[in-house]
Amino acid sequence: VGIKSIRAAFQGERGAFSEEVALQSLEASVDALPFRTFDEMFAAVAAGTADFAVAPVENTLAGSVIRTYDLLLEHQLVIVGEAVLRIVHNLIAPPGVELTDIRRVLSHPVALAQCERFLQAHPHLDAVQAYDTAGSVKLVVEGGRKDEAAIASERAAQAWGARILLTGIESNPKNFTRFVLLVRPDRVERLPLRAADRPYKTSIVFRIAHQPGALHQALAAFADTGISPTKIESRPIEGRPFEYSFYVDVLGPRDSAAVKAGLDSLAAQAESLRILGSYPRAPGFD
Amino acid sequence: VGIKSIRAAFQGERGAFSEEVALQSLEASVDALPFRTFDEMFAAVAAGTADFAVAPVENTLAGSVIRTYDLLLEHQLVIVGEAVLRIVHNLIAPPGVELTDIRRVLSHPVALAQCERFLQAHPHLDAVQAYDTAGSVKLVVEGGRKDEAAIASERAAQAWGARILLTGIESNPKNFTRFVLLVRPDRVERLPLRAADRPYKTSIVFRIAHQPGALHQALAAFADTGISPTKIESRPIEGRPFEYSFYVDVLGPRDSAAVKAGLDSLAAQAESLRILGSYPRAPGFD
Repeated sequence: VGIKSIRAAFQGERGAFSEEVALQSLEASVDALPFRTFDEMFAAVAAGTADFAVAPVENTLAGSVIRTYDLLLEHQLVIVGEAVLRIVHNLIAPPGVELTDIRRVLSHPVALAQCERFLQAHPHLDAVQAYDTAGSVKLVVEGGRKDEAAIASERAAQAWGARILLTGIESNPKNFTRFVLLVRPDRVERLPLRAADRPYKTSIVFRIAHQPGALHQALAAFADTGISPTKIESRPIEGRPFEYSFYVDVLGPRDSAAVKAGLDSLAAQAESLRILGSYPRAPGFD
Repeated sequence: VGIKSIRAAFQGERGAFSEEVALQSLEASVDALPFRTFDEMFAAVAAGTADFAVAPVENTLAGSVIRTYDLLLEHQLVIVGEAVLRIVHNLIAPPGVELTDIRRVLSHPVALAQCERFLQAHPHLDAVQAYDTAGSVKLVVEGGRKDEAAIASERAAQAWGARILLTGIESNPKNFTRFVLLVRPDRVERLPLRAADRPYKTSIVFRIAHQPGALHQALAAFADTGISPTKIESRPIEGRPFEYSFYVDVLGPRDSAAVKAGLDSLAAQAESLRILGSYPRAPGFD
């Protein structure tokens, strides 16, 4: 209809879990562009060669994705949405390779760890670390060996012309990854986000002065006002040993009275405070 | 004098930064025992085959060592002390290998990242990831190639009979790692810790019920009492998506009135609360 598609940046190879999120996230047709590293993905959105990025922020088994947190601070992108994806791991092999042939299983170290019980139950399989889940499917397909499989998403099997031999091999099914959608501030209005009639969340990052009791005072800013945090993450500040940037998600939109009061109080204590975004919460985790 | 030496567990190869901390930490002769993984090191202390462990908890550039945090919760060891070590990286080669011969530099990915400026200034050097800093010295010495060097501690060069070609090649000199000393609860009294006339710190871990405002209430327990946190870390709880264990260090000994009041208030909000230890703070970072 005359509108060119929107370019989404994701980290990983074709078939990555982030690619799936990218393709579902807008009320528009999306071209998903793979990037080798998180740094290159953020840089592409900052430079305008991609319209938005899909960045994982935490996995419910592995924890926070710290490179994403560091890059949120380094770049001036805005969080305009979030998505939560159930992570299902599959054993995937090139066509013609049967389950009984397999001796080596490739995947990202986090995925291998999440399939520990499956690997323990099949001690003849050697777990081999690879750089990426979807990338490990690419490796076994291109490698052409007859004894290798990969652990990755269903989409990765399709993307690289491979077959799913077993599905749901993760040890713990309560395995979810939360992603944020990131846009350059001057392009927020242009992104056709799906309409969402859901409660909002506001994400902030702040630093506090290095003096005894400063963190205590900052926490009081939360306690004394109506804002309710759902997540706290801290990252070291380079060159200032044992000082931290704190990332906090709070319930409510940034223009609500409670969030405004809390942020005002926090801003009075903090050395710096930045609002990373205010956006509808992903469904299903209230 | 008839007393056998104390066995310290550390992760890494001979010459690791943790080994240095282990050897300096007691008023007694110490035998330092290397372990391949953090898991094996914790298990050795729990089983009594080592008397204490030296575990890194955070680096001022890379951030928290999350495997240590997870193992603190998994095992019932007690923190009895902490130490902060300045991390100095050296370019280390086998005897006979000169600076101009070198084309490949091996080290742990975090150490390579911390020497990024040196590597950028010497673009003819290939950075190669290895499993350990001291282990990379072992690798280049045993490998016998004439074009390889490693990045590691001075102690690692001595341990493996290698030579320091350049010292202080880290990009940022404000590079410190904080370690904790861990003991089995029934053996705390037996460990001859160095006498320390320094202010105390208390480390706790707690979980809060999954309901709106629960984290808000827990933070209020800190804000409303005299306890002052210096560090907050959160880790996901397996099987409970988007719920966390919070690790907090607070100023003061566990039996002080302020800390007691704060912990009582927190215990009333929390689903569970455990004191990981109360110990003298490392000097130099007040």
